[in-house]
Amino acid sequence: MIEKEVKIKVCCSEMERIMNVMRKIGAKVLGNYREVDIYFAHPCRDFSKTDETLRIRTFNGKDLCELTYKGPRTCSERGVKAREEITARILRSDVKGLALILRRLGFKEVTRVSKERVEFQIGEVKVALDRVEKLGCFIEIEFPKEELLGRILDMLNIEEKFVEKTYLEMLLTHNLKSIKNN
Amino acid sequence: MIEKEVKIKVCCSEMERIMNVMRKIGAKVLGNYREVDIYFAHPCRDFSKTDETLRIRTFNGKDLCELTYKGPRTCSERGVKAREEITARILRSDVKGLALILRRLGFKEVTRVSKERVEFQIGEVKVALDRVEKLGCFIEIEFPKEELLGRILDMLNIEEKFVEKTYLEMLLTHNLKSIKNN
Repeated sequence: MIEKEVKIKVCCSEMERIMNVMRKIGAKVLGNYREVDIYFAHPCRDFSKTDETLRIRTFNGKDLCELTYKGPRTCSERGVKAREEITARILRSDVKGLALILRRLGFKEVTRVSKERVEFQIGEVKVALDRVEKLGCFIEIEFPKEELLGRILDMLNIEEKFVEKTYLEMLLTHNLKSIKNN
Repeated sequence: MIEKEVKIKVCCSEMERIMNVMRKIGAKVLGNYREVDIYFAHPCRDFSKTDETLRIRTFNGKDLCELTYKGPRTCSERGVKAREEITARILRSDVKGLALILRRLGFKEVTRVSKERVEFQIGEVKVALDRVEKLGCFIEIEFPKEELLGRILDMLNIEEKFVEKTYLEMLLTHNLKSIKNN
């Protein structure tokens, strides 16, 4: 229930090379989906201050979607994020109903994050290759122990330069800039 | 999405007779479950004043449970209740996760209502025979048009004396009395 992960910005031209390394080292493909996340604001709590999130995630071609809550981040010096994550799976056909329940309870839709994600599993480590709409390409690595992270970074030959922001925060900043420029 | 229903208190000794009538008139059994409803209070809205409810319902032996929101009741002179009802189905294995998400969002568990429900369908009408823990036996009839209700009541030979209160309200009153008597 405690998710420990890092996010790394990469050039989209690098994605093919990283994908090939994952295949070469025998990583198992967990999924290849278009994911759309709808983020909600709390009716009486400012999530941007409490550092929490609530979202509904849908996957193209999957019969289930997910309601996920994430608690406040703790961030190590190296930039490794750890936060509580709780998920409940909902029938895809009921996703509109779920969003309506949240709206009736006073939650408000903030924004949507769309991405193409290819997810791999190698031992206890999960590696996600994300092409995020409006934001570019990222690698997310979820791991139980820090030494496993080092090994994966070595194999992938990518720099240890972690992004602390979430996609939601990056997209809100991006949207703000777009408004200012117009 | 607008649920129209009446609730009638009956003697538990009457349940067998009513069950037999339902079978005789060819009603289809939709289900026979032990249902447990967990009701939640909103973090910043008094549901007892706004006349809303939020609950998680689990069914014994079913792989799905339900998250349901009900909006304010409107009640006709005859005692027919109508209210918005929105439901999303969740994997049973994730029900603890869902309750935890609600708690993290500030919702508080108010009480649980347990009942044995046998549910029948006859045409467009649904009839539920409920044995509710601590409260006794009730018939709930859900119908799209009022003339259908009259016909069902005639067939079942039960008095048109409708209970406006929900099980939740009745149970909270019951619990309050128990505390006062102790």
